[in-house]
Amino acid sequence: MPTEKEPTRETYAAAGVDLAISARAKELISKHARLTLRPEVLTGLGFFSGLFEFKGFKQPVLVSSVDGVGTKLKIASALGRYNTVGIDLVNHCVNDIFTCGAEPLFFLDYVAMSKLEPERVEAIVKGLASACREVGMALIGGETAEMPGLYTGDDYELVGFIIGAVEKEKIILGRQIKAGDVILGLPSGGLHTNGYSLVRKIFGETTQILNTHYPELGKTLGEELLVPHRCYYQQLKPLLPYIKGMAHITGGGLEGNVPRVLPPGLKARFNTKAWTIPPIFKLIQRQGNVDRDEMYRVFNMGIGMVVICSPDNSDKLTKALPEAKVIGEVIRQAGKARVVIE
Amino acid sequence: MPTEKEPTRETYAAAGVDLAISARAKELISKHARLTLRPEVLTGLGFFSGLFEFKGFKQPVLVSSVDGVGTKLKIASALGRYNTVGIDLVNHCVNDIFTCGAEPLFFLDYVAMSKLEPERVEAIVKGLASACREVGMALIGGETAEMPGLYTGDDYELVGFIIGAVEKEKIILGRQIKAGDVILGLPSGGLHTNGYSLVRKIFGETTQILNTHYPELGKTLGEELLVPHRCYYQQLKPLLPYIKGMAHITGGGLEGNVPRVLPPGLKARFNTKAWTIPPIFKLIQRQGNVDRDEMYRVFNMGIGMVVICSPDNSDKLTKALPEAKVIGEVIRQAGKARVVIE
Repeated sequence: MPTEKEPTRETYAAAGVDLAISARAKELISKHARLTLRPEVLTGLGFFSGLFEFKGFKQPVLVSSVDGVGTKLKIASALGRYNTVGIDLVNHCVNDIFTCGAEPLFFLDYVAMSKLEPERVEAIVKGLASACREVGMALIGGETAEMPGLYTGDDYELVGFIIGAVEKEKIILGRQIKAGDVILGLPSGGLHTNGYSLVRKIFGETTQILNTHYPELGKTLGEELLVPHRCYYQQLKPLLPYIKGMAHITGGGLEGNVPRVLPPGLKARFNTKAWTIPPIFKLIQRQGNVDRDEMYRVFNMGIGMVVICSPDNSDKLTKALPEAKVIGEVIRQAGKARVVIE
Repeated sequence: MPTEKEPTRETYAAAGVDLAISARAKELISKHARLTLRPEVLTGLGFFSGLFEFKGFKQPVLVSSVDGVGTKLKIASALGRYNTVGIDLVNHCVNDIFTCGAEPLFFLDYVAMSKLEPERVEAIVKGLASACREVGMALIGGETAEMPGLYTGDDYELVGFIIGAVEKEKIILGRQIKAGDVILGLPSGGLHTNGYSLVRKIFGETTQILNTHYPELGKTLGEELLVPHRCYYQQLKPLLPYIKGMAHITGGGLEGNVPRVLPPGLKARFNTKAWTIPPIFKLIQRQGNVDRDEMYRVFNMGIGMVVICSPDNSDKLTKALPEAKVIGEVIRQAGKARVVIE
């Protein structure tokens, strides 16, 4: 047995966990979360319990997803700007469950840092709450964790959990998709939340480089990299009857995500001339001398959401979605590849 | 504008994110998650979408919670033992939602590390899945994130998200609790998932100290610290009709958690002579020269779940729960304090 230590009086606060600061953070979080509540939330029961009265569906299917923001978090901390990462997180999650037609109901977040800074937590949650409000979703609960020794310096973690619902008969599966169907692309806002580890490797993450103005971007690199993940729910929701399948373009790019919605034996052919690759991707490719194929595997390359419809509905959709472009078509699969990017 | 770099060809893998390894991790996760699925899970739709057909409730309230394992994770990585932290996480979450009477339906996890090691992820998920199976809950989805530069060395993060449901009229609120009611305590398995930052400050986290055998513990310190968080759902579920309120004793201890379930004007009085404080807490207190009050604020001190019932039902409950002990009573609140520990 080791010898006893000298009798310093140890406390939780001295060990880096201050329950009073944690309480202060919770108070600030509640302030913003309250603005998101909807009638189904049974708030009288204590905010952090997360009780949601579920009604209004005939044959409901609950649709859930969990996501993080990846190392975009590190860009935000390098620049000391925490008000957008919450928007990234919520929008990413909303798009994910919306691909099967689900409407968002409620959201929970997890924030961890070495030393809780209530004001930093508040900035993050303010972003979360504003994005929740945009889609009528309740920020129903969350956890703030103080983890000294796991996170260092300004590092932190941010994870989100979403619950939505869809009528069973209205789940969008992509099962009606067939050869000849049209692939529409909706523009991304930028990198969204993918590929940041590669970007950080290429550019580094000093404030000097992040604050460098690039004429081709019309802004600094840091500003460009923090552009929030776009949410496609509001614009696509009224068009669901005309949509056969959707793919949210996240990690893995077009190649990794579009096959998820394609029935067996089909393949997606993309015509990259159909849309303009945003300057940030060209800059990354040039600066890192990154292979073209690797670019398309890692990044969204300007397409944040893919919508597949029959040729009959294509005009209706492009009319309703002025930013949407026909970027490809569904064809029969010959070899192994399920996606071809031309 | 900075000068262009030399033309090294950058790739995502070289930046520390290997999509192939990520795919391998997902495969291993699926293997264990599949064992937890229940008929409501619409698996044909792709495992990671998390679709759960919700039925069988008249007036359902969805109950959700999010939690982490805290820096217990660091003890696990110091010892290279990853099979129990998943159990900790699931049991913590199940207890949390069960305090209002909810039954667990499904679970999602988030695992992040600097460099994904599929086998390490598998060990974590195996623990998660086994704990899910114990309570009949589906591990319906998850996210594994590779975050080079955010986590260092063997550090990792593990977050869980639970959804359960309860009939609205059966939600346990504690509203019937009154002065004279009996407080029962169910033993914890050890520290559960709270107070690890203080323990690490006191003992350090070298493998040498963690592998030291303590006669009073009957095991090594590391073994003791990794004893999993206990789940109280199975034993308490049949007894719900006799229970007025429950408090899961996590961060904040008896003082921080029991008032959550007490109606205004009431106070909990605990008699610490009624149960045996497990040796680990005495060891921590002595080694760290920690104040008695601080011990009760930070640790569960041997009580993992508090159950409040009328005096009439106390015998019935202690008979059905051989490990339960009467550890206090509900009294009228005179001053500010809502808990007194005698």
